[in-house]
Amino acid sequence: MTYLDQITRPTLLLDKAKCLRNIEMMCAKAQKTQTLLRPHFKTHQSVEIGNWFRDFGIETIAVSSWEMAEYFVQAGWKDITVAFPFNPLEIKVLNSMPFDVTIQIVLTGTDLIPFLEQNLSRNIHVWLKIDAGYHRTGIAVDRISEIEAFAKKIEKGRKIVWQGFLAHNGHTYKCRTKQAVLDIHQVSLRKMMALKQYFSHKNKNLALSIGDTPSCSLVENFEGIEEVRVGNFVFYDLMQAQIGSCEQEQIAVAVACPVVAHHPERNQMVVHGGAVHFSKDLLFDEDKKMYFGKMVHLENGKWTFSSNSLVSISQEHGIISCQPEDFQRYPLGSLVGILPIHSCLTVDMFAHYLTLEGQEISKMY
Amino acid sequence: MTYLDQITRPTLLLDKAKCLRNIEMMCAKAQKTQTLLRPHFKTHQSVEIGNWFRDFGIETIAVSSWEMAEYFVQAGWKDITVAFPFNPLEIKVLNSMPFDVTIQIVLTGTDLIPFLEQNLSRNIHVWLKIDAGYHRTGIAVDRISEIEAFAKKIEKGRKIVWQGFLAHNGHTYKCRTKQAVLDIHQVSLRKMMALKQYFSHKNKNLALSIGDTPSCSLVENFEGIEEVRVGNFVFYDLMQAQIGSCEQEQIAVAVACPVVAHHPERNQMVVHGGAVHFSKDLLFDEDKKMYFGKMVHLENGKWTFSSNSLVSISQEHGIISCQPEDFQRYPLGSLVGILPIHSCLTVDMFAHYLTLEGQEISKMY
Repeated sequence: MTYLDQITRPTLLLDKAKCLRNIEMMCAKAQKTQTLLRPHFKTHQSVEIGNWFRDFGIETIAVSSWEMAEYFVQAGWKDITVAFPFNPLEIKVLNSMPFDVTIQIVLTGTDLIPFLEQNLSRNIHVWLKIDAGYHRTGIAVDRISEIEAFAKKIEKGRKIVWQGFLAHNGHTYKCRTKQAVLDIHQVSLRKMMALKQYFSHKNKNLALSIGDTPSCSLVENFEGIEEVRVGNFVFYDLMQAQIGSCEQEQIAVAVACPVVAHHPERNQMVVHGGAVHFSKDLLFDEDKKMYFGKMVHLENGKWTFSSNSLVSISQEHGIISCQPEDFQRYPLGSLVGILPIHSCLTVDMFAHYLTLEGQEISKMY
Repeated sequence: MTYLDQITRPTLLLDKAKCLRNIEMMCAKAQKTQTLLRPHFKTHQSVEIGNWFRDFGIETIAVSSWEMAEYFVQAGWKDITVAFPFNPLEIKVLNSMPFDVTIQIVLTGTDLIPFLEQNLSRNIHVWLKIDAGYHRTGIAVDRISEIEAFAKKIEKGRKIVWQGFLAHNGHTYKCRTKQAVLDIHQVSLRKMMALKQYFSHKNKNLALSIGDTPSCSLVENFEGIEEVRVGNFVFYDLMQAQIGSCEQEQIAVAVACPVVAHHPERNQMVVHGGAVHFSKDLLFDEDKKMYFGKMVHLENGKWTFSSNSLVSISQEHGIISCQPEDFQRYPLGSLVGILPIHSCLTVDMFAHYLTLEGQEISKMY
């Protein structure tokens, strides 16, 4: 009896050993420079996996929604950043958080400061979102007068502690070499450090927080950074492998999919595994062919790599481009594994994990 | 107090009146030719919305997974096609279905017939999946000898009733004119009818079943087709509107998203609404610009159209390309609506609907 005997439907698999190695590696890197590791739990969304971080001494976390904040507060976490621009409609949830929990929120400008001062029934910590080049949101790092206006307003806040500057260099996800990632990181970090320096005469305690998995994986150390909110590294995925943030061997999640049809006439197998299991992120291979995942062979306690790709998905169907010999190896009703393009989105589709030891691990759903 | 006052987070909205009109229209079309309408419930996944179909006399449904079959059997549905290539790992669930429920499954070839004969503890109905041009799965419509081999094997089955030929012309989703859809439909239907004719001397009861929303929406009637398994039409979406299967006015679902950041310097607003709410299907507009949804203004009891698009999404963030006047109309914490690219995938992300009358409707999750 192995984990494979427990599976009849698309199932999210977790290689716990790989996951623990990923956690250990990031903790060790943060340790070197005494940088606070505040892992982003939006990737795994699981109390039990969260507890694995506790074993490495982690006590501070980030989440991407108030729903997730509520879930992890219930599990006993006491210092949580909701790393998403604050939505004033969530004020009741914010105010309902236990007083012994440190709540940190993100603002993208001054607009909400009066609202917060008026409606907060507790103290909170606030990060100013800085746009260091990604252009998703935040005040552009060089708009000093806007940042000064923020500083002026926030410092008068009686219920608000200003923590510092928070950036997400999501543009590293477009890189395909280690050097390109490091270049973005260094340019961004230099600007952020200059910003901190500029404001240090008024406030010596301002911190810098960054979080993109490519930079956090590829920099040698976190010199100059007070806090790292990295998330995806806990599992990694094919996108991170293509960027160069990880090796394919470090990817810790896969989806087990039953084979449901053979098409030897075009070397394809159909599996139960589609957009409702993987979401729809995609990558292009060296021949510029689109793919939605890579196949692995599921074995007792591990998976091994194959050259097959998931070349098309619809709601429940996935089509794997395979080799002639695979039809015999994988009769209808057998299982293949698929490594995800984007583990955060794939994991979000499932209610629990199954480890390669056959243990079920629940998550938020 | 309107439905808008109930919303603090990304929320799936349902315009019930539009939905009922879509249902009524398809029922009326099927009625004209006495074609059996077997709506595909994978789109709405809701017992309550299923009941709206009952009010139009519908008693037969299709679903895309055994999980969904279990959900709708519990709600009292008595004739269900699991319209997905049968996965032998689900045999226990199949056998556990109540005996008064007619279970119809789909096979893509002869492989599983011996397995079924050996393992079935009940009678079932079987459709042979035919590939009439989409090339996802099924026996190609012109491979007569393969289909004859299937006919020979299946007719010996003691627990199996062969229902007929089932096709899904998913290639109509690539069309962008009504005529292109109708051409595919007509070519496919001619081939399917010839197939039925060819086998009629052996079996007079074989039926044809089709299901793609573009064809089913655009054909004048279902002449020559015994069964229609159409699903998406219940809500439609931007993809169907771009194909020409519906008008934008017929789209019955939207996602309400809180505005969380303003970027007047680039005419963009950030909303809470990302890949975990919409999935990641996309379309291209006339200028070949990618978009992930279209914005609507949410009003009391209805939504009205805007020219704004959702131009980028990440896990929780959405970026709307907007007009300068929108920043005043939509302060932080206000709500905009987003029409989805693909309603099946968007709906799948939510645990319930909120109607424009403020009624919560639960669904499978």
